[in-house]
Amino acid sequence: MKKAVILLSGGLDSATTLAIARSQGYECYALSFDYGQRHSAELDAACRVAQNCGAIEHKIIRIGLGEFGGSALTDTRIAVPDSPQEGIPVTYVPARNTVFLAFALGWAEVLGSVDIFIGVNAVDYSGYPDCRPEYIEAFERLADLATKAGVEGSQFKVHAPLITLKKAEIIRIGTDLGVDYALTVSCYSADDEGRACGSCDSCRFRKTGFAEAGVGDPTRYKS
Amino acid sequence: MKKAVILLSGGLDSATTLAIARSQGYECYALSFDYGQRHSAELDAACRVAQNCGAIEHKIIRIGLGEFGGSALTDTRIAVPDSPQEGIPVTYVPARNTVFLAFALGWAEVLGSVDIFIGVNAVDYSGYPDCRPEYIEAFERLADLATKAGVEGSQFKVHAPLITLKKAEIIRIGTDLGVDYALTVSCYSADDEGRACGSCDSCRFRKTGFAEAGVGDPTRYKS
Repeated sequence: MKKAVILLSGGLDSATTLAIARSQGYECYALSFDYGQRHSAELDAACRVAQNCGAIEHKIIRIGLGEFGGSALTDTRIAVPDSPQEGIPVTYVPARNTVFLAFALGWAEVLGSVDIFIGVNAVDYSGYPDCRPEYIEAFERLADLATKAGVEGSQFKVHAPLITLKKAEIIRIGTDLGVDYALTVSCYSADDEGRACGSCDSCRFRKTGFAEAGVGDPTRYKS
Repeated sequence: MKKAVILLSGGLDSATTLAIARSQGYECYALSFDYGQRHSAELDAACRVAQNCGAIEHKIIRIGLGEFGGSALTDTRIAVPDSPQEGIPVTYVPARNTVFLAFALGWAEVLGSVDIFIGVNAVDYSGYPDCRPEYIEAFERLADLATKAGVEGSQFKVHAPLITLKKAEIIRIGTDLGVDYALTVSCYSADDEGRACGSCDSCRFRKTGFAEAGVGDPTRYKS
């Protein structure tokens, strides 16, 4: 059975990505990070999703990415905006997906796998640069040059199955695959019980997605 | 004054790299990692070198890279070879430089810097894939696509000033710049006091380098 490393945040997109990887016959190794994010509800959700969606193993790696600051998601002095922003918003975490993919690459190589799955999306998204197809392709080229496996002829594939989908399409695909979205937390400002604010970028995309998909929204909101 | 992030391991090469960056007029932000390496002498050395070579700030980021295993440098069940190996040796740590450069990129972006220095070398080295010029160039292209700064037109530069030098040349340049190599630890199997084994790959390159450079070797050996 082919092995794959799946980046799992505990949100809607990565849960769907894990379900897609499973449906494609991969033995899934889920990878999450404790990187100084604002709330722990995200990692609690990642644990539930890994179990529910059949990951064979789930690692949570503690990394000091928050020590650099510079993002509303890792620095509590910067407020999470509750309305859409011009350009790339302050919730952007510098080099976050590069750090995540680098760890995924390390684990994949140790596992003898060349397949990495990431739930990035470049349609209903916040404009983060490291969610675009050209970025993903550049990482694939880097991976082949970076590794012993690459030097020996392996070609790494960074699967981004959601990258061109609208949020409603993602929800429909996940629902068909049996994903229980009640387990997931997407909100940037969730409380410790995982209840969502309903107004941040991530909440807005999610709420509209469920409405457009015609699927009942299982999200628990704070009020 | 231009800012730069310098990857600093505590070894001979990265100490020289820091000295070169300083000599080029950069305000230097040194970055080290506690990644589950075999011994703490390396990080003690990094602290001494950061101070001695005039880094304006030194961060040590704790990362769980060792959790994946797969390398003699992070898994004590795999022995460090004491003679040259065929091909890429077991001291290779999967995706290590990709992880390190990803963090450096994140810090650089928060600092408003586009300059990252890394002490990789592709001459007197162990054949690690992530020390080659083509790898460094691929990371630069990735950095421009990965970041808000890149999207806004900045071009990142990964400086690898040692990449084509022989170990003896590195030592001569560093000596001219006033690097105190007695502060550095290169050995893969150093003891907690930083005394070197004298027989691992890293020790052999270092020892030969001092001899060829005609510079006294300040390395303290275990026996």
